Amino acid sequence: MTRTDHPAVPVPARRTTLRELFDAPGLVRIVGAHNPLGARLAERAGFDGVWASGLEVSASQGVPDADILTMSDLLSVSASMASAVRIPVVSDCDAGYGNVPQVMHMVRRYEAAGISAVTIEDKLFPKMNSFVASNQSLLPVEAFCGKISAAAAARTGDLLVIARIEALIAGHDLDEALSRAHAYEAAGADAVLIHAKDRSPDVVLEFLERWSSPLPVVVVPTTYHTVTATELEDAGAKMVVYANHGLRALITAVSETFSSILRDGRTSRFEDDIATVEDVFELQGLRDMLDEERRHDAAGVEHALAAAPLANRS
Amino acid sequence: MTRTDHPAVPVPARRTTLRELFDAPGLVRIVGAHNPLGARLAERAGFDGVWASGLEVSASQGVPDADILTMSDLLSVSASMASAVRIPVVSDCDAGYGNVPQVMHMVRRYEAAGISAVTIEDKLFPKMNSFVASNQSLLPVEAFCGKISAAAAARTGDLLVIARIEALIAGHDLDEALSRAHAYEAAGADAVLIHAKDRSPDVVLEFLERWSSPLPVVVVPTTYHTVTATELEDAGAKMVVYANHGLRALITAVSETFSSILRDGRTSRFEDDIATVEDVFELQGLRDMLDEERRHDAAGVEHALAAAPLANRS
Amino acid sequence: MTRTDHPAVPVPARRTTLRELFDAPGLVRIVGAHNPLGARLAERAGFDGVWASGLEVSASQGVPDADILTMSDLLSVSASMASAVRIPVVSDCDAGYGNVPQVMHMVRRYEAAGISAVTIEDKLFPKMNSFVASNQSLLPVEAFCGKISAAAAARTGDLLVIARIEALIAGHDLDEALSRAHAYEAAGADAVLIHAKDRSPDVVLEFLERWSSPLPVVVVPTTYHTVTATELEDAGAKMVVYANHGLRALITAVSETFSSILRDGRTSRFEDDIATVEDVFELQGLRDMLDEERRHDAAGVEHALAAAPLANRS
Amino acid sequence: MTRTDHPAVPVPARRTTLRELFDAPGLVRIVGAHNPLGARLAERAGFDGVWASGLEVSASQGVPDADILTMSDLLSVSASMASAVRIPVVSDCDAGYGNVPQVMHMVRRYEAAGISAVTIEDKLFPKMNSFVASNQSLLPVEAFCGKISAAAAARTGDLLVIARIEALIAGHDLDEALSRAHAYEAAGADAVLIHAKDRSPDVVLEFLERWSSPLPVVVVPTTYHTVTATELEDAGAKMVVYANHGLRALITAVSETFSSILRDGRTSRFEDDIATVEDVFELQGLRDMLDEERRHDAAGVEHALAAAPLANRS
Repeated sequence: MTRTDHPAVPVPARRTTLRELFDAPGLVRIVGAHNPLGARLAERAGFDGVWASGLEVSASQGVPDADILTMSDLLSVSASMASAVRIPVVSDCDAGYGNVPQVMHMVRRYEAAGISAVTIEDKLFPKMNSFVASNQSLLPVEAFCGKISAAAAARTGDLLVIARIEALIAGHDLDEALSRAHAYEAAGADAVLIHAKDRSPDVVLEFLERWSSPLPVVVVPTTYHTVTATELEDAGAKMVVYANHGLRALITAVSETFSSILRDGRTSRFEDDIATVEDVFELQGLRDMLDEERRHDAAGVEHALAAAPLANRS
Repeated sequence: MTRTDHPAVPVPARRTTLRELFDAPGLVRIVGAHNPLGARLAERAGFDGVWASGLEVSASQGVPDADILTMSDLLSVSASMASAVRIPVVSDCDAGYGNVPQVMHMVRRYEAAGISAVTIEDKLFPKMNSFVASNQSLLPVEAFCGKISAAAAARTGDLLVIARIEALIAGHDLDEALSRAHAYEAAGADAVLIHAKDRSPDVVLEFLERWSSPLPVVVVPTTYHTVTATELEDAGAKMVVYANHGLRALITAVSETFSSILRDGRTSRFEDDIATVEDVFELQGLRDMLDEERRHDAAGVEHALAAAPLANRS
Repeated sequence: MTRTDHPAVPVPARRTTLRELFDAPGLVRIVGAHNPLGARLAERAGFDGVWASGLEVSASQGVPDADILTMSDLLSVSASMASAVRIPVVSDCDAGYGNVPQVMHMVRRYEAAGISAVTIEDKLFPKMNSFVASNQSLLPVEAFCGKISAAAAARTGDLLVIARIEALIAGHDLDEALSRAHAYEAAGADAVLIHAKDRSPDVVLEFLERWSSPLPVVVVPTTYHTVTATELEDAGAKMVVYANHGLRALITAVSETFSSILRDGRTSRFEDDIATVEDVFELQGLRDMLDEERRHDAAGVEHALAAAPLANRS
Repeated sequence: MTRTDHPAVPVPARRTTLRELFDAPGLVRIVGAHNPLGARLAERAGFDGVWASGLEVSASQGVPDADILTMSDLLSVSASMASAVRIPVVSDCDAGYGNVPQVMHMVRRYEAAGISAVTIEDKLFPKMNSFVASNQSLLPVEAFCGKISAAAAARTGDLLVIARIEALIAGHDLDEALSRAHAYEAAGADAVLIHAKDRSPDVVLEFLERWSSPLPVVVVPTTYHTVTATELEDAGAKMVVYANHGLRALITAVSETFSSILRDGRTSRFEDDIATVEDVFELQGLRDMLDEERRHDAAGVEHALAAAPLANRS
């Protein structure tokens, strides 16, 4: 980390929306995070948006990624992330936390919280993380189309509804995945996310090749990580999600740091390798806060003085 | 309560703002509440807005109105109220929960939550409810002007900043109250609230008479309740707050209901005097929810069918 | 409401548990509430416990009683109620918010929050309020037994697990209800709640007559309100829940108060009929707070003085 | 990180308290974290407890460490950390969020949430992080003794109250620090934390040398990191806090990971250096969850079968 040259955290002027990024040419690259700090690191690194990852948030809270956290728990994390950055937040909303009424309530609350897009997957509630072998069952296509239709109807502004297809995760073939993708598009999805867990990108590349619609396709190269962003873009993907690498990097880094402290009985060995306390202050926006405080404290004195004669006349 | 003729709870189309009401002619009448149900009852009764009362919210949570609840606690209540109605929510923000940085953070969060106006009073933090005899000390006018300046700078849209003057509550005279009012106007307040706890409205009426600025004045006739809305409007008030009468009415009603149950061993005596379970459903928006569910479940079936041929071609 | 003779809100010494009440002779009477104020009014009226009603909490939040609020939302209400009273809080936990893992997580969180008992009903998630005609489907008995077994295993202390039987609500007969009651007892339930929505208490009285086990039975005479507590106790019920009468009384009282204000343009007409601001202070525990503040402020001065010589010696 | 040999996350049997650790011989070593995952990494690394760091939590939420987050915000983080580990959680409670009433409310809520100790510092509210040069002013010793007296009186169980002395941070000398330490002990503190920001440990070592009381002393070697735990223990310290090193390590690690993804267009380069998805599952307690689910689903079938004959007889 370069320690000195990052500017003060900017006051969020206007948030870019995912819709704007989808309307512009080029691949959209977003990265997983689980709190405002992670969102800010994503923005600073240059990502186009941030993925409020269900796996990351669950892990940060010490519980499995299996609908143990509730919509409210996850919403409050997404909302806090959105308040900290100007890039769009794309929220992983699992299976939508219920049926049509629950989905509509969820969409209204996410939209009110400033979230740019929600992703809803076509699995049964409660869902299980897609990389776990068990408990992967799909919702019938009709029922999921109803949820997508409801989600699209519930938003009032620019929020996008991304339909996440778990057919390949649940052991179905590419035909089923494509068939569901078309149905979800008809139901009102603004994009589809094709999830897969092969070591090879082939099935995803074939999906992209066979996908004839202009509706954007989102991919998540967690297991098939050898494929590059450029290759995915050339194949027709519109957005790529690097879903949980920040979390996995921090687990290793924090574990090693903690072990080192106990081993050495002090922190000197790694002090030069980690962010400084001043770096932390910078990421917190401390300088802006102190500037604002100084400015308004001074303004207060000035206004009180200026108003004194007026007050005497009244 | 008329039980049958109220329409289904409307889907919030667009919220009216307090700014719009201030820009239009006529007195604005708002009433205290402490949760979305109270806000909805205020809207249904015909009030122009709802007052997210610090006293009501504190009481509903079983703690004194003395900065025991935090800004976060109170914000979440205001936010939930705003999500339930189309009339503006005016939030009682006590002394602003700190100094300039805390006030700016508060304003940003309240604005993001859809609150239409915040009221900040010129007392020391932690504040004490204005109707308690002890612990009433004013912040120096310069410091409070700084907080008003900060609040006005922090909002980015239509949120109004109302400066609440506690001079009369703290034992100062009308000159001090007017002097502070002018200073707060200079610092950027969008309105001033003159608080008082006499049994007579005279001091408030005199304030209104001596107030020469077009800046709106807000009044709270809790102790001086004999004065009418028309008299206050004629005297120049722009908004009147009936701050805690719903709370006080419900305490009596619920207490009597509970005592009656224990006395009679059943609820038959008062079943005809209280709202029915169907009234409750209506206030919850159940009919709309069931309609939406039916509609989108049907749409899901339709979309899945319509997409089937497309899917086969892909 | 008697305004003068209620004592200061007591500091919660030790909470009574529902287990203790079940172990003692006599009928346990609890009443619905949706916030700490309601819980305190229940305690003050003399109820043995308070029912954290899903219908009341949903209505207070302006949403249908249909799993729109999440477990987290409801837990935070129950927790705040528990912190305000010494009588036990019995939480209406709908269908348990998922399957075995979600139920275990829920029980652990409710127990940690000081809740005395949870009630889980044998309907599908998302559930619909029992007094609504549609969307009433039962979970297979095996699956619900698994959830009860999980709930019982997850608690580590005195929390009770009450299995709520919705068979009569869903259109099944008394045999099905009794069969399920026995299965839930075998699975580890500490009590069963037999729900019904007839105008007559007959079916509930017959259930009680045919129930041969010593396991406590809970009843909810919302629709069959002519039966008295004594009759229910004589028939063998151990606990009676007056589930939503406080809510229904307050809706009427607040609506009438709000209408009266707009009609009269002032509050004078009903000022003598509603609780005073001082009553509100009393319910908030203000007197205790001020006493504590005075005492510890004085103690601080004393300790600082006493320590001065010590400090000089060190 | 060793990836394969860590056992399943244990079900919290009984939490160790900080009181127990203080009563036993030896130095207590705790480390900063800001969420349940960090707490679990601390426990797994072998730390005796976890420090719910105000700096870490603020930074994770993207705001300055200056009482921008409220007590409620911070409490919910501490509570979630406590629910995830068996080692004690020691919460950094800044200046106590107000005066005597606010402190008592805070202590009651932290104790109810299972926190083992709270640290309150003798600065004015709102506080500023101790490593920032500006805004460091001490509360008069009498007022802070009042807050400590109140905190000690508010807890009902094993929660410890640690008085944090900011005299050295605010530019006062060691005599002032010692004098305050004695006063806080008299007021009821269970331990004192002497904070300092020199590069050398000398002033802290001198404090320890001159401290004649058996009351435990806590130290925070953030700036004076060359001193070892053994040296601090030999000098008489009872607890050492490594306050923010995990946060600082993760900022660097996540920043580098994010930059690498954008540079390479894929994650292959560092896949072998970061925790695997399976490591994440392990930390989330997934295996235990699946075991419990299997067990109770089977139990449900069994109980339903076993009860069938009983049901027929009733």
